[in-house]
Amino acid sequence: MYQLIDGKTTSAKIKEEIAEEVKQLIEAGGKKPHLAAVLVGHDGASETYVASKERACKFVGFNSTLVRLEDTVSEEELLQRVNELNKNEDVDGIIVQLPLPSHINEQKIIEAILPQKDVDGFHPVNVGRMVIGLPAFVSATPAGIIELLKRYNIESSGKSCAVIGRSNIVGKPMSILLSQKADFGNATVTLCHSRTPDLKEITEKADIIVAALGKAEFLTGDMVKQGAVVIDVGITRVKSDKTKSGWKLLGDVKFDEVAPKCSYITPVPGGVGPMTIVSLLKNTLLASRKEIFQ
Amino acid sequence: MYQLIDGKTTSAKIKEEIAEEVKQLIEAGGKKPHLAAVLVGHDGASETYVASKERACKFVGFNSTLVRLEDTVSEEELLQRVNELNKNEDVDGIIVQLPLPSHINEQKIIEAILPQKDVDGFHPVNVGRMVIGLPAFVSATPAGIIELLKRYNIESSGKSCAVIGRSNIVGKPMSILLSQKADFGNATVTLCHSRTPDLKEITEKADIIVAALGKAEFLTGDMVKQGAVVIDVGITRVKSDKTKSGWKLLGDVKFDEVAPKCSYITPVPGGVGPMTIVSLLKNTLLASRKEIFQ
Repeated sequence: MYQLIDGKTTSAKIKEEIAEEVKQLIEAGGKKPHLAAVLVGHDGASETYVASKERACKFVGFNSTLVRLEDTVSEEELLQRVNELNKNEDVDGIIVQLPLPSHINEQKIIEAILPQKDVDGFHPVNVGRMVIGLPAFVSATPAGIIELLKRYNIESSGKSCAVIGRSNIVGKPMSILLSQKADFGNATVTLCHSRTPDLKEITEKADIIVAALGKAEFLTGDMVKQGAVVIDVGITRVKSDKTKSGWKLLGDVKFDEVAPKCSYITPVPGGVGPMTIVSLLKNTLLASRKEIFQ
Repeated sequence: MYQLIDGKTTSAKIKEEIAEEVKQLIEAGGKKPHLAAVLVGHDGASETYVASKERACKFVGFNSTLVRLEDTVSEEELLQRVNELNKNEDVDGIIVQLPLPSHINEQKIIEAILPQKDVDGFHPVNVGRMVIGLPAFVSATPAGIIELLKRYNIESSGKSCAVIGRSNIVGKPMSILLSQKADFGNATVTLCHSRTPDLKEITEKADIIVAALGKAEFLTGDMVKQGAVVIDVGITRVKSDKTKSGWKLLGDVKFDEVAPKCSYITPVPGGVGPMTIVSLLKNTLLASRKEIFQ
């Protein structure tokens, strides 16, 4: 019988822990950690993400600032606003909600954020530091997955691991973290992608599978060995006549087929998803303590 | 019959090409590319490396500067010298020969070099940019290996690849480059290391093997499949009564056993080794043209 890796409960627990830490921080005379978010335009999904980040900040006792800009904002103006947040000593962490309008160079904006405040971990300095094994802000999803392994005490050392998908924000950092000389690292990782000719050959031997390619129900039962740990990063919204909303969320894993073969598996929703916001809060706390860059 | 990947001849050819480019650059009114090396102390191997870098610079028509410092130099003094080179507008590339004396924080020195002049590619900004897929100075050995694949037109796309060793300067960047969405990337890479329980199981299925763990003659014939491409990064100096010097160099690959099974293989010496200096020259040329950071 498989065990469900419950990201919802785990993330709620971690939020309580962070709230407690913040309380102690303030009792000891420290200042409230402060996360600033920049939201350009009115994209529905972005509005939802930013709102839930604000709620989470409030819950754990962080200050949060939302800088709203119209989607007609110039790159220069946006850079200036980021720079103001860089200079604002009260602000510990800065996120610019992606995607940005097409007339703005996203990479340029990412690199404009001070690495010391880059709690999304997208700045090349943080990516590089993570790869080298230096303290770094690690991006939310990979950090959340490592945290789940920790909380469920799932050993990765000496295990074989297949990471499916080579995105900059999930697949690549995930493969690096899992293979690193560190607790909840030390796995032998194969990074699979669209040019992998026989994926099944790799996944069916893997002790741990991280599915992060963004194709609904891609990983099927026949691709997984008995006792595997399966981490599902995918979220695809599909129409459904069985839900009130008319929509349902699917992961990259065909859960009904795969789960019975697993030792541990994350559900969608309620698995990796809720952990991302917790990673962001943790990074903001680290930023406020100046623990990453010394 | 296997084909030898001849790094000595290839690197000589590339040096000729660089020399020709420099000639044209100067004829067009440009300035000579300029590489500055900092050498602390009098370590024999470091002296040899730095001398051969200077020779190579001279050969291709670069200016080169050698800053010599005693091994009693303070970290502060070294940082100051690096900073002077950062500010010197004539200097395009800076390398600080490693290792440094133990009283100096190597990482601090690496990070003091301006990323725009970091032709060794060790600065976190360059590592991060490489991982993200942005233009970057890639460190010498991985860049040299990719160059050999190019020159011998060895297809990596869709191939399975085992990288043995997870060092920051070879194994990790190698695994990232080979799996990246790029020409001479797109391979499915498994990064193997000391905690990989059954290495042979992985190497014997690999189309391409990069051995970079630093153990003499580690990769034996039984670990390699027929037709594999084998890249040997190891250099271990061992005593020998068959050479005049009383020493010989061994790679990480047991050449006599492995070569007959290969389609392509690099020898040691004369394989990957000579390519590293070429990578450094190429990076310096890129730096002088300001092609990486714009």
